[in-house]
Amino acid sequence: MKYVYAFSEGSKEQKFLLGGKGANLAEMTKIGLAVPSGFTITTEACNAYSNSGNKLPDGLLKEATSELRALEKSMGKKLGDSSDPLLVSVRSGAPFSMPGMMDTVLNLGLNDVSVAGLAKQTGNERFALDSYRRFIQMFAKIVLDVDGDLFEHAIEQLRTAKSVATDPELDSDALKELVATFKTIVAANAGMEFPQDPEEQLRLAIEAVFQSWNGERAKIYRRMEKIPDDLGTAVNVQSMVFGNKGEDSGTGVVFTRDPATGENVPYGDFLANAQGEDVVAGIRTTEPLAAMAGVFPECHEQLLGVLETLEQHYRDMCDIEFTIEQGKLFILQTRVGKRSALAALRIAREMEAEGMIDRREAVLRIDPAQLDQLLHPQFAPDSNYSVLTVGLNASPGAATGQVYFTADEAESRHEAGETVILVRPETSPDDLHGMIAAEGILTSRGGLVSHAAVVARGMGTPAVCGASALQIDLEEKTFRVGETVIKEGEVISISGTTGEVVVGSVAVTTPEPGEHFETILGWADEFRTLGVRANADLGHDAEVAIRFGAEGIGLCRTEHMFLGTRLHLIQRFILAESEADEVETLKELGDLQRKDFVEIFAAMDGLPVTVRLLDPPLHEFLPDIEELAVRDARGELDAADHKLYRAARSHHEENPMLGTRGVRLGVLKPNLYRTQVRAIFEAMFERTLAGGNPRVEIMIPLSVSKAELGFAVDQVREVAEEFAAETQGVGDLHYLVGTMIETPRAALVAGELAHQAEFFSFGTNDLTQMTFGFSRDDVEGSFMARYLELKLLDANPFETLDVGGVGQLVRLAVEKGRETRPNIKLGICGEHGGDPASVDFCHSVGLDYVSCSPFRVPLARLAAAHAALGANGPATTA
Amino acid sequence: MKYVYAFSEGSKEQKFLLGGKGANLAEMTKIGLAVPSGFTITTEACNAYSNSGNKLPDGLLKEATSELRALEKSMGKKLGDSSDPLLVSVRSGAPFSMPGMMDTVLNLGLNDVSVAGLAKQTGNERFALDSYRRFIQMFAKIVLDVDGDLFEHAIEQLRTAKSVATDPELDSDALKELVATFKTIVAANAGMEFPQDPEEQLRLAIEAVFQSWNGERAKIYRRMEKIPDDLGTAVNVQSMVFGNKGEDSGTGVVFTRDPATGENVPYGDFLANAQGEDVVAGIRTTEPLAAMAGVFPECHEQLLGVLETLEQHYRDMCDIEFTIEQGKLFILQTRVGKRSALAALRIAREMEAEGMIDRREAVLRIDPAQLDQLLHPQFAPDSNYSVLTVGLNASPGAATGQVYFTADEAESRHEAGETVILVRPETSPDDLHGMIAAEGILTSRGGLVSHAAVVARGMGTPAVCGASALQIDLEEKTFRVGETVIKEGEVISISGTTGEVVVGSVAVTTPEPGEHFETILGWADEFRTLGVRANADLGHDAEVAIRFGAEGIGLCRTEHMFLGTRLHLIQRFILAESEADEVETLKELGDLQRKDFVEIFAAMDGLPVTVRLLDPPLHEFLPDIEELAVRDARGELDAADHKLYRAARSHHEENPMLGTRGVRLGVLKPNLYRTQVRAIFEAMFERTLAGGNPRVEIMIPLSVSKAELGFAVDQVREVAEEFAAETQGVGDLHYLVGTMIETPRAALVAGELAHQAEFFSFGTNDLTQMTFGFSRDDVEGSFMARYLELKLLDANPFETLDVGGVGQLVRLAVEKGRETRPNIKLGICGEHGGDPASVDFCHSVGLDYVSCSPFRVPLARLAAAHAALGANGPATTA
Repeated sequence: MKYVYAFSEGSKEQKFLLGGKGANLAEMTKIGLAVPSGFTITTEACNAYSNSGNKLPDGLLKEATSELRALEKSMGKKLGDSSDPLLVSVRSGAPFSMPGMMDTVLNLGLNDVSVAGLAKQTGNERFALDSYRRFIQMFAKIVLDVDGDLFEHAIEQLRTAKSVATDPELDSDALKELVATFKTIVAANAGMEFPQDPEEQLRLAIEAVFQSWNGERAKIYRRMEKIPDDLGTAVNVQSMVFGNKGEDSGTGVVFTRDPATGENVPYGDFLANAQGEDVVAGIRTTEPLAAMAGVFPECHEQLLGVLETLEQHYRDMCDIEFTIEQGKLFILQTRVGKRSALAALRIAREMEAEGMIDRREAVLRIDPAQLDQLLHPQFAPDSNYSVLTVGLNASPGAATGQVYFTADEAESRHEAGETVILVRPETSPDDLHGMIAAEGILTSRGGLVSHAAVVARGMGTPAVCGASALQIDLEEKTFRVGETVIKEGEVISISGTTGEVVVGSVAVTTPEPGEHFETILGWADEFRTLGVRANADLGHDAEVAIRFGAEGIGLCRTEHMFLGTRLHLIQRFILAESEADEVETLKELGDLQRKDFVEIFAAMDGLPVTVRLLDPPLHEFLPDIEELAVRDARGELDAADHKLYRAARSHHEENPMLGTRGVRLGVLKPNLYRTQVRAIFEAMFERTLAGGNPRVEIMIPLSVSKAELGFAVDQVREVAEEFAAETQGVGDLHYLVGTMIETPRAALVAGELAHQAEFFSFGTNDLTQMTFGFSRDDVEGSFMARYLELKLLDANPFETLDVGGVGQLVRLAVEKGRETRPNIKLGICGEHGGDPASVDFCHSVGLDYVSCSPFRVPLARLAAAHAALGANGPATTA
Repeated sequence: MKYVYAFSEGSKEQKFLLGGKGANLAEMTKIGLAVPSGFTITTEACNAYSNSGNKLPDGLLKEATSELRALEKSMGKKLGDSSDPLLVSVRSGAPFSMPGMMDTVLNLGLNDVSVAGLAKQTGNERFALDSYRRFIQMFAKIVLDVDGDLFEHAIEQLRTAKSVATDPELDSDALKELVATFKTIVAANAGMEFPQDPEEQLRLAIEAVFQSWNGERAKIYRRMEKIPDDLGTAVNVQSMVFGNKGEDSGTGVVFTRDPATGENVPYGDFLANAQGEDVVAGIRTTEPLAAMAGVFPECHEQLLGVLETLEQHYRDMCDIEFTIEQGKLFILQTRVGKRSALAALRIAREMEAEGMIDRREAVLRIDPAQLDQLLHPQFAPDSNYSVLTVGLNASPGAATGQVYFTADEAESRHEAGETVILVRPETSPDDLHGMIAAEGILTSRGGLVSHAAVVARGMGTPAVCGASALQIDLEEKTFRVGETVIKEGEVISISGTTGEVVVGSVAVTTPEPGEHFETILGWADEFRTLGVRANADLGHDAEVAIRFGAEGIGLCRTEHMFLGTRLHLIQRFILAESEADEVETLKELGDLQRKDFVEIFAAMDGLPVTVRLLDPPLHEFLPDIEELAVRDARGELDAADHKLYRAARSHHEENPMLGTRGVRLGVLKPNLYRTQVRAIFEAMFERTLAGGNPRVEIMIPLSVSKAELGFAVDQVREVAEEFAAETQGVGDLHYLVGTMIETPRAALVAGELAHQAEFFSFGTNDLTQMTFGFSRDDVEGSFMARYLELKLLDANPFETLDVGGVGQLVRLAVEKGRETRPNIKLGICGEHGGDPASVDFCHSVGLDYVSCSPFRVPLARLAAAHAALGANGPATTA
């Protein structure tokens, strides 16, 4: 096993062995750029170290020593030398960029002897001593885990003793004293003397890097980013060059293109007579790259050449760190540069135009999750604000407005021209009119798939949910976070992208997706095989969906049509005491639904629209039973209230999620479904007469058996026949009828259901709830966080489809469904339709389309292209 | 296709073609018994009739006519003849005995001509006229669907006109008048004249039988008994013989053995000069069979011979109908006789001893479902009572007692020596102490798997649930059914076997299972391969289970140990404000649990006991939130109540079934599970020191992933190691640790779970809830009845395991579990463990054992034997 590679031995393909940084250093060395020599200790050495209970593997030190000797030879310097010592930097470098690990130890090799050599070599004793004390301080803190404050405190005391205000005023003698003090601090706090042997320094630094791989912060980051624990980190040991050796030296960071806009011009910062950390730390004001041309014309020219070389070589925008030591340019590291979503799109598109990459590559360059930035307003990047609390980033976008605590109030204030942030403990379908009126929604309870979150995402309204620090007092109309109290009407700002809640207003910018966005998504459409539809309940939503490229509606929920001003109608239906009363009410409801459908079918003309018949339990349309009980106890109920109270009580369920809803309702109240179906046909008829082309798929929710689904399908067919007869054949409209697969049993008996269903739509929200036995309303607020923390689940299954469990059911249903009906249409309409990893699964399992909220449509289009291109592993189209 | 078979052509094996009655008539004809000649029209003819929209199939009438001619020839009589007419009976006869169908038309062939022939032949004009008017009446009512009251009314009028009190006083002239009136009634109400042509009479009668197969009552019965609709019914046409031709004639019904006790003596009723219907109708007092020996010694002797022949031939107890016509014995029909459970056991056992059947046959002769009769008190068969209302037969047995409406009241009245019937709208865990104190439980809400039903069955307490006619007024302490009001303290009786509710007391008998029961179940044990355990939470339950032959405990629920007087402890745990407080409370709970476990392990010494760690959500241990809200509104809460209220609110869940319960609780509150596990080990240790042999299986409920289960299993192992260390190895006790498979995901990833679990126990109640998305508390009270009525489900999946859906998951988990861990122990502990059809499935899928409530153990043992013997189709031991 070879554990150590000289830079000249590796290449950029060896990322997993040498880490990202090491592989790039090797690559640059290979293509002849001026990289200070060095070597990389492999990630395999790190794993060997971890697996043996923190013991460096046999042979590693011997290999490293031998590379050190070679390094000394190539640099013509010696570690610890008293006249011209070799100094090195030690840096961690994992296969993926990873905060939380030990970063950098500079100037390793300095000791009581070589400090004199450095002084001699630079002719600057003060510089050498300052470097030495900095090295001791950094080494003690990072490698030996000594409290950094001890050193800061010692410097302070010395300044006081010497009566100086700043560190630069400390002279060589003072610094000599400081070095001695620092060594004492180390001896007293590290359990060892500060090591004078440069090879011991190096060994300890290597071990410190390896240990930081298993540090708490690194672990948390890996869990968050789903990086496997067994990748390990590499260690890079590189000869030091100094940008602070005088006015002929300098340092900088530069991108080959503008990382904010994507414009094809180098973009960077430069500082003369400084070390790299000074640029990053922002202590001194940096100068733009152009300024460098005046001071270091030759190096500047050289640098531009390097940038060109790197970009051509990497076929991507790169960033580099460089140092000029006494007029000579060195490249210290490079990597593919981070960029904004806007820049990513422009760079990809322009590189394609430049012939550097093809369209496939251009599409793969865009991270679907990043697109959200482009579709929603955000807190302006340069705005200053202090965060009151952070909740869950439930629906992206930012909003500023006045706080109101009830849906009614939100609505009336909105109508009065105010911009409103609706603040609720949680929301229910009753609050919908207020949610529509609000610019933003803030709740103290509920998770990422709570009612508030799902509805807000569906509408594209920014929402922060589950902000548990909020104590809402609905009677007082205030909320409190710690000592801060916000009253009704006060202004707050929320960012559903970050989860931040801010008192007062924050400047908000709305990015414009622009032509690059359209072009790249157009290319994505060429590659993807998976259709993308939107979940949309209203004509307006349908229009937004179309604008974002939806190819139809995969889920049109009809219950939303019964809310707001129409709530009284469905309540009247529930309370109906005679069939005549029921029929009368249904007629009114049907008329309203017909109008809704006409609007949607018009917006989606020529595209398929999946209409789901009524799904939620009826009691969702009735007032809260506890509230009624309390009002009853207070004697506040009138006769009508009492009637509602009785109805609410008789419809009350222990577990409404598993109660009388979906097709069960359709069986108990066949006229309800028949009315809805009738309204659909009437709307289709109206559209057809107007020259439109409605393509409707009628969806039965929550079925569990063939006979049950057959019962509902028969009703649909009967209404269709009746309607066709009434309209004398003119109304003989084409439609599909199918079902949602959202109970585990539906998936298990999908082969039978396919005899009745012309399409399946996987309702993976409910399917996940029932497969896990997780009520999403309950578990996200309680144990989900702990489960993810303890890694008892790979991911929150409501965010990313659980391939191991729920996925088995989906796969089974796809197979059995196709067995029975080879041309069955298959789609998904759960929240997962907008999650890239889940879209990949849907592609691999062979669905025809995914459907997601309108604002996630672009993301799904791109993710579908990635899936087709095998971006997430071998593509399977089974 | 041959549609008509003479009796001499068939045999008893042709039950499906000829119906049960027809096949037995053929069999008796074949073995030479004196059966009046006749023929059978096949079930295939019935199906052909139904499938062609009620049209008799081609050729049927021709075949029937030809058989009629043969019949005339063999009897030497002619249909419609004016001197010695042939008369026939027409009876339906399906493959399975089935009420609700057209039963019998006697004397078919009588008309205006043949009535004279009958008079001539019998020398009794009045008899002939009376037979004729009875035939018209019966034919019109049954075949032509004329209202029977019209005829009764006409008779009444005639009696008045003739000034006589009884029918026998009507003379021939009066009867002639009556015949004329009856024919007028028919003409006016049947849309046709009374048919004079005997062949038309026969055709109409055959069609009436076929139509009755699809009558509403027959359909409901078939659905209830799960008899397929396409079996069809046969029609038997048989020459009439008359038991009412004078004192040398008679009729009777006789069993080859006593159907009530099983004693091996013929048992029957006899009536001289009477027709069969007189025996059944109970108008005249019948005489015991022995009395016949004096009057008809020869026929009696002959009859005993027939009984002997039939029993030897059928190798089973038979019943027969016989008629003596003018000194000659005829056997009209036979079938295997119905018998009580007690008789079934005795007959099977004695026939085995007599060498008539083997043990296998003896075991198969007992219907497992029938055993329930023997294990619970019943309303005495001869008692007279009127039923107030009928609810669901939720837990078998009968009880009489005083009505109380709260658990506390029930408990204190019980302690005061009263026998109590607890009446509640529904029950919750809070009511447990009252349920334990009650002799019987009656609820107005909740289905067969409601809390009340499940707990009552578990305790063996009679319960009637979901008696929806009950209007309970908890404040007034009364319940009302219609006009009847029952106050607290009044006596009622309930039968959980039938669902009946009766005002006042009803005599109750408790059958004694006896030695036949023990013997047959012993034989069953020899055949079965499936183990049978009991679900038992307390030492007392464990003892009952042992008595009924349980081979261990498959489910010991630890939550019941936290109720009643211990409720305040678990509440204190929930409300604990410091860890010290929590630890303190857990110590007390642990001590109590240890004592419970010692009791159970002692009762089950040497047998496995599966202990399930705490499963229900914590809020089940807190008061009802709505009640608290109301009391709060009334200002009735003190500080302690407010604390409880806050806790109840913070633990409140939308769908508690899918919330924070089972192992989720164990993850959030690890000390709770550790305390329980510790108590288990302490109890094992105590039992071992006392010379016992505790065999414990620790069960983690509701797991969904390997990591989650591993987390819980690790806790168990850690506590075990700690305990072993403390007791210096003496406490190194052997135990298994496993999990319930009750979420669909657990079944899907069973292969992974088996790495952690040494056993699986299928919790099919919850698995059914989640697979269907049915909350049992909600759906049984709402749509389940309608679903079963419309046949949208084959059966209530909470009663009989849903092989098509839930069964797939069970099968999958069994396969995957065994793949990972070939010797994994597999059992089931849902309610289904006591359902014969479900036991059969468990056998076929290869489980090691079923576990059910103690009172169902005998039933499960027998059902397991039936399964092993392939009683329900081909046995598979995969």
